[in-house]
Amino acid sequence: MIGVALDLFSQRSPDDVSIDEIAAAAGISRPLVYHYFPGKLSLYEAALKRASEDLAGRFVEPQEGPLGARLLRVMRRYFDFVDEHGPGFSALMRGGPAVGSTATNALIDSVRQAAYVQILSHLRVENPPARLELVIRSWISLAESTALIWLDGRRIPRAELEVQLVHDFAALAAVSAAHDDEMGTLLRHMLKEEPADGPFSDLVARLISLAS
Amino acid sequence: MIGVALDLFSQRSPDDVSIDEIAAAAGISRPLVYHYFPGKLSLYEAALKRASEDLAGRFVEPQEGPLGARLLRVMRRYFDFVDEHGPGFSALMRGGPAVGSTATNALIDSVRQAAYVQILSHLRVENPPARLELVIRSWISLAESTALIWLDGRRIPRAELEVQLVHDFAALAAVSAAHDDEMGTLLRHMLKEEPADGPFSDLVARLISLAS
Repeated sequence: MIGVALDLFSQRSPDDVSIDEIAAAAGISRPLVYHYFPGKLSLYEAALKRASEDLAGRFVEPQEGPLGARLLRVMRRYFDFVDEHGPGFSALMRGGPAVGSTATNALIDSVRQAAYVQILSHLRVENPPARLELVIRSWISLAESTALIWLDGRRIPRAELEVQLVHDFAALAAVSAAHDDEMGTLLRHMLKEEPADGPFSDLVARLISLAS
Repeated sequence: MIGVALDLFSQRSPDDVSIDEIAAAAGISRPLVYHYFPGKLSLYEAALKRASEDLAGRFVEPQEGPLGARLLRVMRRYFDFVDEHGPGFSALMRGGPAVGSTATNALIDSVRQAAYVQILSHLRVENPPARLELVIRSWISLAESTALIWLDGRRIPRAELEVQLVHDFAALAAVSAAHDDEMGTLLRHMLKEEPADGPFSDLVARLISLAS
């Protein structure tokens, strides 16, 4: 039943999905739904918990090979998720009556935290300086807003945005490194194993061609 | 009374502010508060409306001189606002029981829209391509998350973050320009009147020094 509810909550704004509809789609009676979930909000939260675990799972990437290529693979899986859950993802992240509870906010934060922890572990940093935390967390919010803007009309190919977000990460890290020596050392460490055909080298080549 | 309520809602999480306290601080009776506002939420929304108008007003900047310096002045006023309303700003933007209504979301969106319209008008672009809209709107969300992370411990001097956000705007525009010719033309137009001592030139100098 949670899987059925998640499908429905993903495909339309949660405000527009009724318990009757979920019961019908799951082939069970309305009282049975209420037996397990006292109301739509609790069922919504159960579905959201499943979706959060699914999304957090997609951030997990083997710690092998160049960082840029790893991040690009995660971005592809992230956009897969956003694509599969489009209307529900928009409704959730833009807030609204059915989705603004403390429990839903805690779930959103848990996914952001999972992304943050993954990135830190790939960078092999245990005690992140404040500026690195800022770059990672603010980039995570950039990835969310980019996905939301993409969903609103899908006017830019998602493959382009997946690469662009990898480039944005490098760009935000470079700006921070331009302000702080410790970030400069981290950035050089981050980039030192990037191959000439990876996304970070691709960005540098594109910027050089732009400047000329 | 709205001004008094806004002060209280700014200095603590709105959940922790009572109508009694607002009445006492405004020097009026509790029934009189209820005469004008049926409940705390409606008073909160009135206070938030005033704060939204205040913040949107701070985005207005004369269309004179280099773009980077204009954006930096706006960032200074933005951080002034965030500083003045710290706890209330955090509670609002992180969502929560007292602040997740449709009306509060509409007010947040109205401020984001005001920022977007201001930036477009400074860039003198009337029909923005999708990629420019993405850069501006996603940068606005980056400015929000940067301010929220700053409020959480204030571990980085705000003056540094004000400059950094101006640099972030240029960096995100440059990444987009690296993917798209139309954005490349816009970026060159944006940067062509930047002086050698402005924030954009400062970024380039810092990046060159970082790379060497």
